[in-house]
Amino acid sequence: MTVNRQWVLAKRPHGMVTRDNFEYREAAVPEPGDGEVLLRNLYLSFDPTQRGWMEDRESYLPPVGIGEVMRAGSVAQVVTSRHPDFAEGDLVQTTGGWQDYLVASPGSGVMGLSRLPDGVPPTLALSVLGVTGLTAYWGLLDLGEPQPGQTVLVSGAAGATGSVAGQIARIKGCRVVGIAGGPDKCRWLTDVAGFDAAIDYKADDVDQRIGELCPDRVDVFFDNVGGGILEAALNHINMHARVVLCGGISAYNATAPIPGPANLMNLVVMRARMEGFIVIDYMDRSAQAVADLVAWMEQGLLHHQVDVQEGFDNIPDTLNRLFTGRNIGKQLLKIADPE
Amino acid sequence: MTVNRQWVLAKRPHGMVTRDNFEYREAAVPEPGDGEVLLRNLYLSFDPTQRGWMEDRESYLPPVGIGEVMRAGSVAQVVTSRHPDFAEGDLVQTTGGWQDYLVASPGSGVMGLSRLPDGVPPTLALSVLGVTGLTAYWGLLDLGEPQPGQTVLVSGAAGATGSVAGQIARIKGCRVVGIAGGPDKCRWLTDVAGFDAAIDYKADDVDQRIGELCPDRVDVFFDNVGGGILEAALNHINMHARVVLCGGISAYNATAPIPGPANLMNLVVMRARMEGFIVIDYMDRSAQAVADLVAWMEQGLLHHQVDVQEGFDNIPDTLNRLFTGRNIGKQLLKIADPE
Repeated sequence: MTVNRQWVLAKRPHGMVTRDNFEYREAAVPEPGDGEVLLRNLYLSFDPTQRGWMEDRESYLPPVGIGEVMRAGSVAQVVTSRHPDFAEGDLVQTTGGWQDYLVASPGSGVMGLSRLPDGVPPTLALSVLGVTGLTAYWGLLDLGEPQPGQTVLVSGAAGATGSVAGQIARIKGCRVVGIAGGPDKCRWLTDVAGFDAAIDYKADDVDQRIGELCPDRVDVFFDNVGGGILEAALNHINMHARVVLCGGISAYNATAPIPGPANLMNLVVMRARMEGFIVIDYMDRSAQAVADLVAWMEQGLLHHQVDVQEGFDNIPDTLNRLFTGRNIGKQLLKIADPE
Repeated sequence: MTVNRQWVLAKRPHGMVTRDNFEYREAAVPEPGDGEVLLRNLYLSFDPTQRGWMEDRESYLPPVGIGEVMRAGSVAQVVTSRHPDFAEGDLVQTTGGWQDYLVASPGSGVMGLSRLPDGVPPTLALSVLGVTGLTAYWGLLDLGEPQPGQTVLVSGAAGATGSVAGQIARIKGCRVVGIAGGPDKCRWLTDVAGFDAAIDYKADDVDQRIGELCPDRVDVFFDNVGGGILEAALNHINMHARVVLCGGISAYNATAPIPGPANLMNLVVMRARMEGFIVIDYMDRSAQAVADLVAWMEQGLLHHQVDVQEGFDNIPDTLNRLFTGRNIGKQLLKIADPE
C-alpha cells in the first residue's frame, strides 16, 4: 500500500477512445487532512457521459484536465478517517476517479461522499441505487410524467438507465416498448424486465416497428441515443407527448457534427415537449428515490444486470464497452474487494 | 353579386407554391340555411402555416382537399343572416377561404364565427388581435415564461407573430434581440418596435452575433424559422432555457427533409426545454389575450405593420410573399371594402 496507481487523461480523444488517450502513472498515496478521509476504490462506475467529460468544451461539469486523473464515480472503503462521520472500513460512494486511493470529504467531487446504506452491495449502489438508477427515476417521473395506460418508449432500453426507466413506467401502469441492440438484450427486456415489447435496432426497421408496437402512439419517449432513433420516435409521438432527453450516445464519439432530427415540427403539430436534465440537480432528493427503488426491488418489480470487469489495467478499455454495446446492463470494474 | 369567385387547390405543391397549384373557378353564391349567415369576404389572412395545409399529410388540421377552396382566415361582412346573433352588415372573423362568398355558422371552420369588437378595423382583427397576435401572446407567455431581466431571442422577428412576441417580452421587462432579414426590417425592430438589438440573418454571422448581443445567454428563444437559426440559438441557451417552437418557415418549401440542429444535447447540458404549440388550443381564452393586447396598443407599447395587397387575381402570388420575405409585417389581401 505504498503506491497509488492512476490512469490520467493524456490527450483528448477524436472519435472512439483508445488507450493512447490515457497514461498510466504511479503516485504517492495521499494523506488525509482534518475533516477528510483516505479512501481505497473498490468498484468504478462507467457511464456514457464520461466520454463528454474528456472533451475540452463547456458542459455541466468542467472537462477533465490533461494530466488529471480520469473522473468516475466509485464505491470505496475508508482506510483512514479524520472525519467524525466516517470510520475505518466504511463503504462509501464518491467520485473516486481511475485510481486506487484518494482523499475525500463530504463536500468534495461531484457526488460528495456518502456512506452506503447497510446491506447494499457496491454493485447495487453504483447501478439501480446510483447515478444511473436515479437518472431513470427523475427523468421518467419528473420530466416524463407517465400516466397509467399511456405508452412509454425507451431507447438504450437494456442499459443501466433505460432498463430502470422502462420498468418504472411499467410499475406506473404504462405500456412500455424498449429499443435495444441484439436479440439477447431484447429477450431480457421482455422476459425478465417485463417490457411489453422490444425493438432490435440492429435488425428491425425502428420507425416501422414503433408504429406497429405503439398503436396509440408514444406519450413518453425516454431517449438515451439521439440521432436516427430520436427521429424515428418523433414520427410517432402522441398529442402532448414528453420527450425526455437523457443522453445521445449515438453522437458521443462522432468526429463531425451529426444532424438532428428533420421532423422537429412534429413537436409543434403534437404540442409536445422535449426536455433535457442532469441528475445532479436532483441529488438533494435522492432519499425519496432510493426508498422507492429499494421497495420496488424488494417487491420483485425491478430487475437489473451488472457487467463487472476486473483489473486495473483494463480500465481504459472498459469505457469503450459502453459504445460498442458489449456491456450488459450497468458497466462496472472491480479494483479490489473490501477488506 | 351572382358569381362566387374561388381559388381551389388544383395540385399539391413540391417546393415553392406556384399559380399552377390553384385553379380559378366561378361558383354560385350559396344560400344560408337556418342558423347560418351568408358572408362576403373583405380581407384574407396569409400565414406560413397555410403552406402546410396544402400537403397531404397528417397535421393539426386535415389537409385542404384537391378541388376544395383554399383554406384561410378572413374578415367578412354579413350579407344575409338567418342566425339571431348576427345582423346584415356585421363584420365578422371566420375561416372564409379564398373566395368571395361563403355560408358560415358559429360552429363552422377552424375559427368559428365571431363579430369584430366595435371600432376594431379588419386589418387589426387579422393581425395583432388575430391568429398571429394570439400565437405570439400564448407562445411567449405560456411556454416561454419570460421573467424580468431575462434575455429573449426571437426569429422571424419582423413578422406578424415574431414582432408581437418580442414586444410583449419587452413589456415584461426582458432584454429582447430579434433576428430578421435585411436592414429595413432590422431598423424597424430597434427604432419602432423597441427591440434592444437586431440581427440581419442575410448579412450577419447569426451564431456569432447572438453570442455578442446576448452576453447573459438566451433564456427564451421564440422560434419561427428552425434550421440553422435554431441551431445557432441552441449554442447560446442559458440554464433552464425555454425554446418555444412556433414555426419552422425555413423548411416549409423544402423538397427533401432538412436535418435538424446537431446540438440538441445542449438541451441536456442546460436542462432546457423545447416545446411546440398550436394557437387554436387557446381560443377559449382569447378574451384575456385580446384585452391585454388592446391595452398595450393604447399605451403605445405595441406596434405592428400590415402589408395589404389587393385584387382577387393576386391571391395565389400573395402567399409566396411570406416565403420570399417580401412581406412587411402581417400579410393581408383586400378583396372588397365593407358596404
